[in-house]
This record gives sequence, C-alpha cells and structure tokens, in this order.
Amino acid sequence: MDELALIDRLRLIATDPAARGLDDDVAVIGDLVMTHDMIAEGVHFLEIDPPASVGWKLVAVNLSDLAAKGAEPVAALLGFTIGSDSEWDEKFIEGVAAACEAYSLPLIGGDTISLPPDAPKVFGLTAVGRGDSSIPSRSGGKAGDALWVVGLLGDAAAGLAMLKDDSEAEGPLVEAYRRPVPQLATGRLLAPYATAMMDISDGLLLDASRLCAASGCGAEIRLDQLPLSRAFVAERGAGRRARLGAATGGDDYALLAALPADFDPLGLSLPPGTILARIGELVGGKGLKLFDAAGEVPLPERLGYEHRAQNI
Amino acid sequence: MDELALIDRLRLIATDPAARGLDDDVAVIGDLVMTHDMIAEGVHFLEIDPPASVGWKLVAVNLSDLAAKGAEPVAALLGFTIGSDSEWDEKFIEGVAAACEAYSLPLIGGDTISLPPDAPKVFGLTAVGRGDSSIPSRSGGKAGDALWVVGLLGDAAAGLAMLKDDSEAEGPLVEAYRRPVPQLATGRLLAPYATAMMDISDGLLLDASRLCAASGCGAEIRLDQLPLSRAFVAERGAGRRARLGAATGGDDYALLAALPADFDPLGLSLPPGTILARIGELVGGKGLKLFDAAGEVPLPERLGYEHRAQNI
Repeated sequence: MDELALIDRLRLIATDPAARGLDDDVAVIGDLVMTHDMIAEGVHFLEIDPPASVGWKLVAVNLSDLAAKGAEPVAALLGFTIGSDSEWDEKFIEGVAAACEAYSLPLIGGDTISLPPDAPKVFGLTAVGRGDSSIPSRSGGKAGDALWVVGLLGDAAAGLAMLKDDSEAEGPLVEAYRRPVPQLATGRLLAPYATAMMDISDGLLLDASRLCAASGCGAEIRLDQLPLSRAFVAERGAGRRARLGAATGGDDYALLAALPADFDPLGLSLPPGTILARIGELVGGKGLKLFDAAGEVPLPERLGYEHRAQNI
Repeated sequence: MDELALIDRLRLIATDPAARGLDDDVAVIGDLVMTHDMIAEGVHFLEIDPPASVGWKLVAVNLSDLAAKGAEPVAALLGFTIGSDSEWDEKFIEGVAAACEAYSLPLIGGDTISLPPDAPKVFGLTAVGRGDSSIPSRSGGKAGDALWVVGLLGDAAAGLAMLKDDSEAEGPLVEAYRRPVPQLATGRLLAPYATAMMDISDGLLLDASRLCAASGCGAEIRLDQLPLSRAFVAERGAGRRARLGAATGGDDYALLAALPADFDPLGLSLPPGTILARIGELVGGKGLKLFDAAGEVPLPERLGYEHRAQNI
C-alpha cells in the first residue's frame, strides 16, 4: 500500500465535512482551522541545521497552512521528542518560542516523549487558527481565474542544495530554507477574494496540479513570471532550467491563490515588501501547461516532492 | 536540560489561559478541548504488538484525555509516518479506523511523512472534543474530597510484563495493555460534579501526586480499595506487592476524579459494567500517604512512568 493508497484508506474514515475530504491542507470546525504537520530529521531537516531554525520551521510551516486559509493564529500544540543532546533540545525550544512570539501563536499544550536511543528526531505541531467567514479551499478554482503567487519561489531549494554541497554555506538562500516566513497578513487579505488558495510547500508545479485536480480544471503557468529573488538569480541564473528548478524545488511556503481575472490584488493594502506575482491562469481541461517567452515548455518529469510530506 | 526543565521553558510561551499553565492534560479553546499524544515504537509500543492494536491505542489514549474532561469526541488529526512494511501500515490504519468508528471520532486531517530507513515508528494524534459548561482541570481538588477511580488498575502493566516474558502471551491482561478503553461515558457523567479529574496513564500514584500538586493538597490512598480485575488477581495475587504494582504500573487509562465527599457517583446512570471505586481522599498538606488493612504503607520509590510521556 503506497502513500496515496493509504490516504485513500484514511478518506474512508474522514467523512465528516470538517475533513474537507482530506483534499485541503486544513480541517475546519466552525470558524476554527486546524492543521498538523510533522518533521523528521534526515527527511525534513538536516542534522547540521541549527536547532533553533528547526524549531522555527516547524512552527512556520504550520502557520503557512493557516495563512493559505486566511486564518489568524490562535494556538498550537507541540509534539516534542526529547533527545540525548539537551543543548540541542533547548535551542530547538527557543526556536519554537521565537516563532510563536513572532506570530502571536500561544503554545497551549502537547506531548513530550522519549525516543529509543539513536532514533532520528521527529516533531509534530498542531496549529489552530480562526478563519474569516470565507475559508478558501483548494477546490473552488474556475477556468478563467488568474493564478497568483505570494512570496518567492526557489530560494529554499537553492539554499538546501548549497548546504548539501557545503554544510557551512550561509546567506539569504540558506536562510530561506531554514527560516521560512508564513504569509499570514497577505493570506488574510486575499482569502475573501480567492476562489482557491493553498500554500506552496512541495513545489509550485506539484501544488498547482493539486489545486487543479481539486478544482476540476487545468492551468497555464508562465515560467517567466515566477517571482525569483536576486540571490536566487545570482546563484542559478534566470534561464529556463533555473526557473524549472524554482517551480519544482519545494519548501517555499509561498501562497498560491486563484483570484477572479478582473480582481487586482495589488490594490489591497498589502504589507510593505509583499511580493505578489501573477504567474498564469486556470483553464478548462486538466493538467498543467508551461510557457515562457519562447513558447510552450515541456512539463518536467518531477513536479515537486511527491512523497516527502502529504497533508491529509 | 532535563524533561522537567524543558517543560518549564515551554511554560514561558504558554501564557494563554487556554494552556491551563500546561498543568492539565488538555488545552481549552471556548468549549473545545484539545489534546495531542505521541507514541513511539520501542517506548510506547512493542515491535511485536499487532499493528491494529497500536492504531487503536493511539486513538484511545487521546480519547482518554477527553474522557477526563467530560468531553464528547469531535474530531482528530493524525500524524502518520509511512514505514517500509506496507502491510503493517495498512493494519495500523485499520486500528485507527476501528477506534475512530467505535467512539464516533471523525478523522479530519493530519500529515503523512516518511522517516529515514530503519527509524523507529512515531505517530501522533490530536483529538478535539466538546466539553460541557464545566471542564474539570487537575487543579480544583480540595481537602476533604473523595478520590474515585473509574476502571481497573494494573491490568495493562501486568499484560505488558507477560508480553516481555513471552511475546506470544495473550488474554485479558494483554488485551488491556493493547486495547485500552477510554472512559468517555462515565467521564461525561462525572465532569459536572468533579472538582478535579484526569486520566491515569502513568500510574495511579504518579498521576494522583500530579493532581495533588496542581490542587495544592495531599491525598490518602487505600491500597486495599484499588479496583483489580479477576485476571490481575489470578496473575499477581492481591497482596501489598501486587497492589503497589497496580498503583504504579501505568497504561491504565482509567480516570481519577476528586468528588465532594457527600456526593455518591454510584447514584448516576452509569453505563452497565462501569467499575467505580472510592480509593481515598484529598487531605491538607502535600504528598501521598498509602494505607492498607495493616496500616500505613511506605510510598514506593517509583510512583509511575515519570519520563515516559508527559502531557504539556
């Protein structure tokens, strides 16, 4: 039974409307939005990652799911495994605390357990947020909607690649990998208008294909419109290969929003410095088509990190 | 930094009233009660445990926390790690499904991740319940209150000991260890009257000492009043040593309730077969005193599983 078959089995016990068919990143109970993400050493973070950044990231990736639903952070429950290196653990908790404080997310409970000696660390966080009257799902997108990205693509994957080459690497790309910033304020502003919204955690193309599948439509994406940072372009260039890397890299924690074509989100009172890029549109049919200035670009074989993590 | 120091550090970011000072098993947001428990292979379950029983137990231990707050199950989020043995995974999910169905707990979301090869399995569950107008904490107990236990003590620890001697062992004690039954119905009936209530997961004496510490009082416990099953007595006898084992064994998932001395819970419409035992009372001062027919019994050095799991 592979991961998708398992999730299909889970769907059979997820018949409550709050589950949203397990097709969304969150569950919805009344006006509360809930998400649970786990991270494991050697899979979602590196042994060399500073423990405070691992704690920060655990909180931030969950907040990114709340951001995609336009929800305000309410509270979190932490699943913490005590390791043999208490200094590491202490710094990890400091990172959790820093992110909780930065985004006004009170920690209200959880569990602390021991693991067998030498087991890789595994952490979980459940984040609870409060949504507005409209909590966008993945499934409301319509042919003709414009596709927008909030935040930058590719930085985190480029930072991770740098760290794999050189564990001492640093700079803005490494920071983007280690300390993602959840797009909470912009998510809240966009939610009332978005027909569909989700966060981009596993790669733009993979997450866009999930939005399309849930919405019953396809998408045309302009690779030349992807929001790239100066640091990314300095490291990778801005050619087709670099852009395909940015579109499939994962760990971006940007937002992907489908908005009515005639709605201009740049007219909203966005936080200073918000990066918002119109990268394409939803179309009839299904699947993705990519374009750049030279015309249609073949879809890469790998759209993102399919088996790394899957919200259910 | 040991576990208690870490939890003290977490308390600093748990200032929200919903956290109940991390002194309770649950967090409370409005009328919703939330709990998160993790279990790890080699720590909370054995490699030889049938996977369906591991899935059942993960759900049941979280429901036991809801039971202790008189809460009705509303929904759960599952943190699932995919292993290399897909048959094991499938049976685990069947066990989760069976417990969710048995207690009307819809699965509404969560996360599925991979672990590095050969890593011990780790699972998490967040359970959400809806409480009555009064959600008993650990901290409201008063000197003079009677202490009651709902359910049996010692069976699970005896079953675990049998499995450690003989991995093929079976019978009601092994079942008690593998398939704990959350005391949801009785918890709901007692909650409006309980001055303090919690579930007994780490051993009666350890959990009672936690209730006393949170309530600012002590307790006198009658070892000869502990609710023991016939199977337990057949295996271990009913002497002082056996009773001390039952009082410190852990994994009971019984309830411990402080009730006004003049209140008789046996007058409630309890579900058929409910086991309810008055095992002592809260007193002034602090700490526990044990008694049996022969007089005061010295407190054992180990009150329960201090470092195995700690709700925060």
